[in-house]
Amino acid sequence: MNPKIDKLIKLFAKLPRVGSRGGQRIVLSLLQDKTGRSSALAAALLDASESIAPCPVCGVLTDRDNACEFCRDANRANGQLCIVRDLADVWTLEKSSVFHGRYHIIGGLLSGAGGILPQDLNLTTLPGRISSEKITEIIFALPNTVEGKTTQHYIMSVIGNVPDVSFTELASGVPLGGELDYIDDGTLTLAFGGRKTL
Amino acid sequence: MNPKIDKLIKLFAKLPRVGSRGGQRIVLSLLQDKTGRSSALAAALLDASESIAPCPVCGVLTDRDNACEFCRDANRANGQLCIVRDLADVWTLEKSSVFHGRYHIIGGLLSGAGGILPQDLNLTTLPGRISSEKITEIIFALPNTVEGKTTQHYIMSVIGNVPDVSFTELASGVPLGGELDYIDDGTLTLAFGGRKTL
Repeated sequence: MNPKIDKLIKLFAKLPRVGSRGGQRIVLSLLQDKTGRSSALAAALLDASESIAPCPVCGVLTDRDNACEFCRDANRANGQLCIVRDLADVWTLEKSSVFHGRYHIIGGLLSGAGGILPQDLNLTTLPGRISSEKITEIIFALPNTVEGKTTQHYIMSVIGNVPDVSFTELASGVPLGGELDYIDDGTLTLAFGGRKTL
Repeated sequence: MNPKIDKLIKLFAKLPRVGSRGGQRIVLSLLQDKTGRSSALAAALLDASESIAPCPVCGVLTDRDNACEFCRDANRANGQLCIVRDLADVWTLEKSSVFHGRYHIIGGLLSGAGGILPQDLNLTTLPGRISSEKITEIIFALPNTVEGKTTQHYIMSVIGNVPDVSFTELASGVPLGGELDYIDDGTLTLAFGGRKTL
């Protein structure tokens, strides 16, 4: 196989959920395309990789050296700060329109096996934000897993007690449309423990 | 969402079998990567899209204005010419090491619905190749479908009768490991019609 094509396939194959067959398919479709899709993709990729960087305040990817759309938006300064693992979680929350405050991306979860240590988390700007943005509620929207909960407890211990700031986390329980016999024991235990009076 | 990120996701989402969720995942992994994978991918893509073109003889993608690795290889001038639909089929045949002659990519199959017409097929160099490369056998390895067979008959009518050139096609039948109750009726009919004496 031509070495340039081979190199391109190998680079595409390493992308999430693509693999070598998917890489072949993508490269064939791009190189056989006559509408200039491959140069458009190369240009957009180069442009984004050179000019996009994490927001220095919250960690959302945005134009380099600028505050992101959320940190610039004064309407979002409602005193609520939502702590999430990564940008994909921000996009998920934005799509549901359930939250209208500011975000803080920590960039990972504490994990012995995965090698993520406290100093790898994006936490340095967090205490300053709580006072400068007059935060009154910190909402933890981390994954409902051992790593998520460990990380949440660590962050709470770092922030400590701040007067007039409450900490909340998302509710645990049976998902909407969830049939009981498909729910795992851990979720059932949480749902029972958190049962509500009608 | 940042417009540069949004543009990049949309371009990735249009690639085969990626889609919008896959595009988000790929763009996040590329933009959060600190090892320069995105600029490497952009450079390889630009390089390939500028310097790769179909071989002027057989249609295999290769360095622009050069004959491809198959047409340059004198060992492959064994008198056999395999007619395939596209480069993916060449890669599949090469992986199986079943064929050691030259290829001819026609670039599509005749189809009323898909809008592929006889003049869209890469056939202009084919008659010349048969004499200049001393072809003795033309092997049709087109898909075993109505479109594939229609295209095969059309190509045979274009070439016409050439002395000392035989036309062959791949055998039809039950695939290796194929259980009879999973085989469709058409394949079963072909396998019965082509049954061999033991």
